[in-house]
Amino acid sequence: MYKKDIIGLLAQVKQKGPLVHHITNYVTVNDCANIVLALGGSPVMADDKNEVEEMAAVASSLVLNIGTLTTKTIEAMILAGRKANESDIPVILDPVGIGATRLRTKTAREIIREVKISVIRGNLSEIKVLSGLATTTKGVDSVDHDLQGGREIAGNLARKLNCTVAITGARDVISDGKRVAFIENGHQMMARVTGTGCMATSLIGVYSGVASDPFLAAVAGLVTMGLAGEKAYRDLGAQDGVGTFRLRLFDHVYLLTANDIIEGAKLNGE
Amino acid sequence: MYKKDIIGLLAQVKQKGPLVHHITNYVTVNDCANIVLALGGSPVMADDKNEVEEMAAVASSLVLNIGTLTTKTIEAMILAGRKANESDIPVILDPVGIGATRLRTKTAREIIREVKISVIRGNLSEIKVLSGLATTTKGVDSVDHDLQGGREIAGNLARKLNCTVAITGARDVISDGKRVAFIENGHQMMARVTGTGCMATSLIGVYSGVASDPFLAAVAGLVTMGLAGEKAYRDLGAQDGVGTFRLRLFDHVYLLTANDIIEGAKLNGE
Amino acid sequence: MYKKDIIGLLAQVKQKGPLVHHITNYVTVNDCANIVLALGGSPVMADDKNEVEEMAAVASSLVLNIGTLTTKTIEAMILAGRKANESDIPVILDPVGIGATRLRTKTAREIIREVKISVIRGNLSEIKVLSGLATTTKGVDSVDHDLQGGREIAGNLARKLNCTVAITGARDVISDGKRVAFIENGHQMMARVTGTGCMATSLIGVYSGVASDPFLAAVAGLVTMGLAGEKAYRDLGAQDGVGTFRLRLFDHVYLLTANDIIEGAKLNGE
Repeated sequence: MYKKDIIGLLAQVKQKGPLVHHITNYVTVNDCANIVLALGGSPVMADDKNEVEEMAAVASSLVLNIGTLTTKTIEAMILAGRKANESDIPVILDPVGIGATRLRTKTAREIIREVKISVIRGNLSEIKVLSGLATTTKGVDSVDHDLQGGREIAGNLARKLNCTVAITGARDVISDGKRVAFIENGHQMMARVTGTGCMATSLIGVYSGVASDPFLAAVAGLVTMGLAGEKAYRDLGAQDGVGTFRLRLFDHVYLLTANDIIEGAKLNGE
Repeated sequence: MYKKDIIGLLAQVKQKGPLVHHITNYVTVNDCANIVLALGGSPVMADDKNEVEEMAAVASSLVLNIGTLTTKTIEAMILAGRKANESDIPVILDPVGIGATRLRTKTAREIIREVKISVIRGNLSEIKVLSGLATTTKGVDSVDHDLQGGREIAGNLARKLNCTVAITGARDVISDGKRVAFIENGHQMMARVTGTGCMATSLIGVYSGVASDPFLAAVAGLVTMGLAGEKAYRDLGAQDGVGTFRLRLFDHVYLLTANDIIEGAKLNGE
Repeated sequence: MYKKDIIGLLAQVKQKGPLVHHITNYVTVNDCANIVLALGGSPVMADDKNEVEEMAAVASSLVLNIGTLTTKTIEAMILAGRKANESDIPVILDPVGIGATRLRTKTAREIIREVKISVIRGNLSEIKVLSGLATTTKGVDSVDHDLQGGREIAGNLARKLNCTVAITGARDVISDGKRVAFIENGHQMMARVTGTGCMATSLIGVYSGVASDPFLAAVAGLVTMGLAGEKAYRDLGAQDGVGTFRLRLFDHVYLLTANDIIEGAKLNGE
């Protein structure tokens, strides 16, 4: 299910090298750039309000990540997002740490009000806050693991915003309000490396740059990240840890083949 | 000496996963986040004045690192530091490059005047400048290696500020004004990787999030970093260099066991 | 040709450890710091207008990289650049993504008008835009591969600005308006890792900190980066990708010997 679609998108990424404009946090920005390059896209980071509209207008997709917000980047995100909307360029939102502070909650809500979003990716806590539901957030890591509820929450928010919502966790849930996909790839060690969430969002950004269907772009991004995570873990010896694991994530996104997807993607849906 | 305390703190870190709020520089911020995760803590970076107080209030500890100061982050550091003080959350200060410019010297002094600090970690040059002593500073790397003087300097500053002072170098010196500890772990190759000082400070931040005694948190942080450094060096083959060494630092912080501390910590004190 | 000069500069770097002040982008700043350390220099990053002049004045060289411009860093670049000029400290410019937005083009032109530059390094698209020639730019990666034209373009800009111009690509071209050098080291996989261009500029910054001839500093920097790239590629097994490749870049800059240069540098010129 969807495997042929993902393989098709992967081939298009390799052929077209979509330009992914990021307005993102300074913690994981280097990882996001490298994961985009690993898959075959071309990353560009620009967040000054005097250039974001021009940059967004020539990009294949725009990723907005609120990991380290400042007053300046909030303004730039809105400007770039509107410009992308005008130019029919898909916008992907990562509401990092929403719920942890009022600034993040307010900003993420402002973005979804002012900008038409194509795909939102977050952990369950983040998507719940964005949906206006009660949850527990502490810092930027999810402490909410109600996987059963994920499907309904993703579907409801997707219908409300007319977009695709992707909730990542032990089992990923992706919904566009009609279809739903579940992915069981990945490995828990991914939670021990900073930026695996941000990188998943950037991969969705790359696929969004070539996909006509945002739901498939989200599925493709999360399958790619999940497969890389489990293959990276498989490579580890007894004396390896998170440093080696992190390096192998980039290797396996780079090495990803159609065959890996056919044989490895643990994907189902309705 | 202190080995049992470190082992106890390590177990608590693994169990509690303390949230460490950083206001830090954009050069080594990714390394700081990853080293916190490697040890078992949970990092969060936030530096906008509109959210730092909320973030600090829910954190287990707060790390202030002046590696790339701006007017905005200075204000955020003071706000977050005061909030942490109100909430009895330990504040760890890394006065990176103090002495190199008047802005850094002025800012570090302002922070210690406005915020009650739990642990200060720096190289000898940095701690001397903070103590008001003459030294030589060039950039952010220490050029002062008067190890004999370190003990007195750390003790004096610790008594003056009623905090723990940790001076890192070939031999680390940690003092809270009464006790003093010396650590001879580590390897000189650590000076050839950016951020090993910042990472040591972040590790102290993690341990501070579970420790009732800041002195022990500082000792635990520097033993952890030192052991990782010497084990990383031991892993290198003739054709490996700083890239491989840096990766292995993260692996060995992740892999650290009670037994490593018992057998490997080169620790003594009074 | 020039090999003895490069070997001489490498020895001086190891001996003197030049301090390289960077005002650079937050995407690749950690890589720039680590590559400077790998070669034997000492990096310092500072971009607040209240400290850049002091920092530049004590540095051995100053690198200005416009990868993620903001209004604040533009001002800091001009201040630091002028101070470096006053103090006879070489200034190296990397006009990242010039042409992609008007802000970048305007800023790079302002810098070359206000600051005397020692070496400019960019890809062919970037150098063409800086020269006022028509080209195609999309994001920060070059899409212009007219290698034959590179020589004339580099020479003309070098003469106009009385500096050294280095164009990197499959074949690097370096000219100071009189001499020209071509380097055919490197590997195309370098384009799949973010920051290899920025790192090459930083390496030129390190050599510039010890060289009296900026042209030789540029040649040395690009030979170093090119050799590291091809040796990193040679290390890869079938199951390695860009993660491993990137790590090995740092290893091979660290491991570089006089013998590597004698046997490996594919260098010619006039």
